Amino acid sequence: MSTARTPEFQLNDWVQHRSREVDAALNRLLPKATTRPATIHKAMRYSIFAGGKRMRPALLLAAAEACGGGIKPALPLACAIECIHTYSLIHDDLPAMDNDDFRRGKPTNHKVFGEGIAVLAGDALLTQAFEIAAGCDAWPRYSHRDLVLEIARASGSLQLIAGQVADLEGEGRDLSVAELKYIHERKTSALLCASVRLGGMSANCTPAQLKALTDFGYNVGLAFQVIDDILDVTQTTEKLGKTAGKDVAAQKATYPRLVGLDKSRKIAAQLTKRAFDALKPFKGRAIALEALAHYLLHREH
Amino acid sequence: MSTARTPEFQLNDWVQHRSREVDAALNRLLPKATTRPATIHKAMRYSIFAGGKRMRPALLLAAAEACGGGIKPALPLACAIECIHTYSLIHDDLPAMDNDDFRRGKPTNHKVFGEGIAVLAGDALLTQAFEIAAGCDAWPRYSHRDLVLEIARASGSLQLIAGQVADLEGEGRDLSVAELKYIHERKTSALLCASVRLGGMSANCTPAQLKALTDFGYNVGLAFQVIDDILDVTQTTEKLGKTAGKDVAAQKATYPRLVGLDKSRKIAAQLTKRAFDALKPFKGRAIALEALAHYLLHREH
Repeated sequence: MSTARTPEFQLNDWVQHRSREVDAALNRLLPKATTRPATIHKAMRYSIFAGGKRMRPALLLAAAEACGGGIKPALPLACAIECIHTYSLIHDDLPAMDNDDFRRGKPTNHKVFGEGIAVLAGDALLTQAFEIAAGCDAWPRYSHRDLVLEIARASGSLQLIAGQVADLEGEGRDLSVAELKYIHERKTSALLCASVRLGGMSANCTPAQLKALTDFGYNVGLAFQVIDDILDVTQTTEKLGKTAGKDVAAQKATYPRLVGLDKSRKIAAQLTKRAFDALKPFKGRAIALEALAHYLLHREH
Repeated sequence: MSTARTPEFQLNDWVQHRSREVDAALNRLLPKATTRPATIHKAMRYSIFAGGKRMRPALLLAAAEACGGGIKPALPLACAIECIHTYSLIHDDLPAMDNDDFRRGKPTNHKVFGEGIAVLAGDALLTQAFEIAAGCDAWPRYSHRDLVLEIARASGSLQLIAGQVADLEGEGRDLSVAELKYIHERKTSALLCASVRLGGMSANCTPAQLKALTDFGYNVGLAFQVIDDILDVTQTTEKLGKTAGKDVAAQKATYPRLVGLDKSRKIAAQLTKRAFDALKPFKGRAIALEALAHYLLHREH
């Protein structure tokens, strides 16, 4: 991970420490690889521990910190979000969808376990997310109902799944910038938004803080996806850890394709500025969130 | 539907009335078919309104009645369970799993909408179930946490999904009766059990009532599946509304294959007796549940 803006704050150390905590929590919360039927638990764990950057958990834990909360109540929610993210990757990679053979430099779930088990491993991780969210400690201002609804809405047919549907239907077709934005808002912003909101909820945040986190998550999410589009055309498969140039090959609508590379970079920078502006009310307590946003804008893979 | 044991109680009327209520509630709770992206909502609704028998909602509402509860607080939970059931059918029917072209006499979801959308429609219904369960009214004795955990556990990798995995892995292989029972407990009993337990919870039932409903659901579930096995070898495709003789063709382990038809019928009868015994503490208030159990044992499709 690249270095953060603020010299005193070491994003690398911060992220590494959190990633270890998230991995340990996921290891505790998921059924063991030997639990019957072992195949499904091996498949769930294969994708969960496939070297993901834990970006959503990091954002969630950083949002909790910004609201004065600790890591403990935020951890299960970070795990729930990572389960949702991983399920969506497993299903998106299926031959009937994006048909990806590699993800983070490793064979995709269905290449290792077969399509049937890959569908079920995704289903199981989606279900596990709700079991984890409903099973975690709740706080006075936010109930389990709030937490479960937050996850369900962000990942349901009006958000995360809507994005994937629109993405599938947009393949090989000319999309407008508005249509592309619709896809990005749903495929990426929805879950990033839910991540930082859940972090805030775990810290028993105020309604004003929740609003600020929503604005931050929405804009970081859009920026993240614009950059993903940019990296697909500017980076190699090796560096990305997934097949590069796929969007171009599939004639997918992307920001670089629709508005050019320079304008795409400007849009990403503008969205990140909006994200930073959203953090102003935290007056310096959102240092990890700020550093993460910087990393997201300047990342190279 | 066949007639019930008690002459005064008309199961047909009871079920028809409840089915209409469940259909109306599902229609209210699911996004409209025109809501963007329309494809996914059409696909969700196609399978939800494909003529299912609403057996799980019926059991849930009957359990609520047995505990003195009304239909209103039980209805959203009945819809949530039907969403889970329907999602599992859509995914089970996929080419990578059971590869079924027909379900209830209609083309399966992926035959109409394609595999990609069918995977997503299943995902969306699974997610919708939790949104509905978390969004419904809660009761003093049972919180949203209880309701969501009940659904998540019954449909997770240790229960419903475990059953499908074991089923997939058992194809073309000789299974023991114990292995077959393991599959049936998970593929069918788990969700039927959760259905009646949620019905009880919606009626704010006592712990003793919850225990009785658990025993009832477990045994009815096993009986239901043994009968499904029996019907596959004794009925026609037309009457079943799905391809008959598939289990035999796929050399699937079934009760008739492992222990013969007569013994299978005896096992089903014995399980139903245990289910009836579980209802004794309700002292005549579980009249709809009893009638449903009779119907399940004597059904012909």
